[in-house]
Amino acid sequence: MTKASICTIGDEILIGQIIDTNSAYIARELNKLGIQVRYILSIGDNKDEIMSNLTKCLQESDIVITTGGLGPTRDDITKDCLAQLSGAGKLIDSQEQWAINKAFFERRGIEVLDINRAQSYVPDTCRVIPNRLGSAPVMEFILPAGKFGHKTALYAMPGVPFEAIGALPDVMASIKKEFDLEEIVHKTVLTYGIPESVLAKRIEKWENALPEWLKLAYLPSAILGVRLRLSCYGASDHTRIKVMDERIEELYSILGNAVYGTGEESLQSILPRLLKCPPEAAYQETLSVAESCTGGYLSHLITSVPGCSAYYKGSVTSYSNEVKINILGVPTEIIAQYGAVSAQCAEAMAKGVLTALDTDYGIATTGIAGPDGGTKEKPVGLCWIAAAHRSRTTGDIEVVSKQLNYSSTREINIERFASNALNLLRQLVEQQLF
Amino acid sequence: MTKASICTIGDEILIGQIIDTNSAYIARELNKLGIQVRYILSIGDNKDEIMSNLTKCLQESDIVITTGGLGPTRDDITKDCLAQLSGAGKLIDSQEQWAINKAFFERRGIEVLDINRAQSYVPDTCRVIPNRLGSAPVMEFILPAGKFGHKTALYAMPGVPFEAIGALPDVMASIKKEFDLEEIVHKTVLTYGIPESVLAKRIEKWENALPEWLKLAYLPSAILGVRLRLSCYGASDHTRIKVMDERIEELYSILGNAVYGTGEESLQSILPRLLKCPPEAAYQETLSVAESCTGGYLSHLITSVPGCSAYYKGSVTSYSNEVKINILGVPTEIIAQYGAVSAQCAEAMAKGVLTALDTDYGIATTGIAGPDGGTKEKPVGLCWIAAAHRSRTTGDIEVVSKQLNYSSTREINIERFASNALNLLRQLVEQQLF
Repeated sequence: MTKASICTIGDEILIGQIIDTNSAYIARELNKLGIQVRYILSIGDNKDEIMSNLTKCLQESDIVITTGGLGPTRDDITKDCLAQLSGAGKLIDSQEQWAINKAFFERRGIEVLDINRAQSYVPDTCRVIPNRLGSAPVMEFILPAGKFGHKTALYAMPGVPFEAIGALPDVMASIKKEFDLEEIVHKTVLTYGIPESVLAKRIEKWENALPEWLKLAYLPSAILGVRLRLSCYGASDHTRIKVMDERIEELYSILGNAVYGTGEESLQSILPRLLKCPPEAAYQETLSVAESCTGGYLSHLITSVPGCSAYYKGSVTSYSNEVKINILGVPTEIIAQYGAVSAQCAEAMAKGVLTALDTDYGIATTGIAGPDGGTKEKPVGLCWIAAAHRSRTTGDIEVVSKQLNYSSTREINIERFASNALNLLRQLVEQQLF
Repeated sequence: MTKASICTIGDEILIGQIIDTNSAYIARELNKLGIQVRYILSIGDNKDEIMSNLTKCLQESDIVITTGGLGPTRDDITKDCLAQLSGAGKLIDSQEQWAINKAFFERRGIEVLDINRAQSYVPDTCRVIPNRLGSAPVMEFILPAGKFGHKTALYAMPGVPFEAIGALPDVMASIKKEFDLEEIVHKTVLTYGIPESVLAKRIEKWENALPEWLKLAYLPSAILGVRLRLSCYGASDHTRIKVMDERIEELYSILGNAVYGTGEESLQSILPRLLKCPPEAAYQETLSVAESCTGGYLSHLITSVPGCSAYYKGSVTSYSNEVKINILGVPTEIIAQYGAVSAQCAEAMAKGVLTALDTDYGIATTGIAGPDGGTKEKPVGLCWIAAAHRSRTTGDIEVVSKQLNYSSTREINIERFASNALNLLRQLVEQQLF
């Protein structure tokens, strides 16, 4: 199996100033190609550390990906190390990267300093993969077997996350060309509402009957639910893809409505598909949100999807009972009789926001996120969620609600409450049984 | 200088399923004690890898902190490795951890399986630091100089972030006892609204005049602004602390109102201090929010502070003009004449939400978060924010607004818009000049 190591270079990570998110992203992409990540290493901006650790990485892996250490103020250290490790003669100017950088500075009307000019200079032993989102190019070094005992490829990438992520497809394409990798196809099925252990039990037979070249991974998340990733090894054999698709069809029929999407989708990104949209439908269905304990997070999830204004009209965060009563029209008696954290209040909030904001659907949350504020009857982690739909023909409102009980941190409770509310909306739209 | 390394154990990180947040947290705490983190390493659940890499860590550092690899299903691997590395004779039952675990299972009414029972067994070479939030205790191994060339301390911590963070103060207290560390005191001054480069220029003279035992670090963040951390080395000398405090006073007078807090505060956590509260004041001042482009994120920031219901009444996310007009009372003419992304609309939204939700203060955002949807006149990254205050005596409303221009991703634009709105509120409350 082809092995890789990932090495982040920069003091910011070692002093805990920033969290290394690049490595997880890169590791995921390498795994998709069937490459095993042996270790992930973070080291500082120090020549000895860089030299000794990169040498170790190159000896112990086929592919080494570094991020960071290429900023204009210190690119000498990392670039010097890479030049030395690869046996470079001199630095040469990458015309392609310089054209990008020059255009950037001209567009902004900023003077080009020497340290900026130096960014497009690279060791003559590397091939440049241009960085279109920043000024430090990706450097690819293909080192022959004589150097570290076997053929190795080193990719030095920028540390800024959106630059690293932006350049990654080109790096992965190059790795595919340089190494003779087994072809792997991944397909991910997204489920919500069934705990991981129950899910595992339910698909046990199906899982045990999978051919050994078809692997299953469980990927649980507070916001996305449990994702099931199927990886088909030796996918150049097209009959395998066909079998994989058949098994996924079986999975759908076992899990039914627990499946909400595939691949990179989320409960919020499927809303355009869930709600009736022109040109298929005669009108665009719309959504609004009423939040108490989730405090704006549910609306934030929905509006994290670009273009959501086509179906999303907005929300009311009713952190006080007064706002529940005055803006959402929750009857005072409901709060007096059942309390703000109750099925009745959640349902009234969902109906209220749908009416106030004049939308087809409304969803609501009301609960206790913690860490303080619970009682014995209504402990921290309790939440009521509701989803309502108003018929365009009759004007009748249908409403459903559900009780949740969690016991996590305030942050994670809020995430779970919000994603459950989106799932309840999905169930209402799909008219699943309640 | 005392050196440490951090090692996370677990396949989840190597396949990119989870992002390692523990290491940054631990690194920050070690740095606060003046301990240099040499590297951070992530390895898989594999005995050879664990043995060889932990040996390397122990040889090259005074302190090694591991997280993860202690789950009930695989604790044999990591525990075995630690037993072997420390020369343990046998596993012994930690009565203290078993009492915690037993109580947990009893409270939940769950049957204790053998794999659960095994969690409180530890090598006889370690001291247990109990884990009150989970079932795997922290194991402290103090290894004499004969073992790895110098005295080393290894702390094996659980991988679940809230368990690791929960046990960290005890681990740090133990490290302080075991090693003769120079005393360091850190104080952080939080600023907002001045770019890092401008800030550096403004405090250049002051910074250059700092004694060499007083170090300054810039910690920039989209949400928190630029934090300035002063670290006083050799702080057992109390005259140094006095000098440090004097320098901080000087910093305050140079930066004036750009300073909004200290330490771990944030623009949202200072709201209780910013708004008039009983018993000092005769009444509790209240806040509401109107959001367009920030889509709920601003309200989410405010409600991430436990207890915010004392001063926060809620928000309206007006993603459609209709909601701006019908719920917030923005005059149709304003939108027709100036557009929804305008100073006039932002101000009307702030006044509107304050009136609709009956609060003392109202803040509003309206802009284009991207990635699509901008025009030449109103490009992606443009946002208008406003803050309004209504006098309880006269009923008059004062409103201020500000234009923002950013060019980042949708996510980061939203973060910057929201934090700027909180800062504008602060400026209005503090009656800074506009």
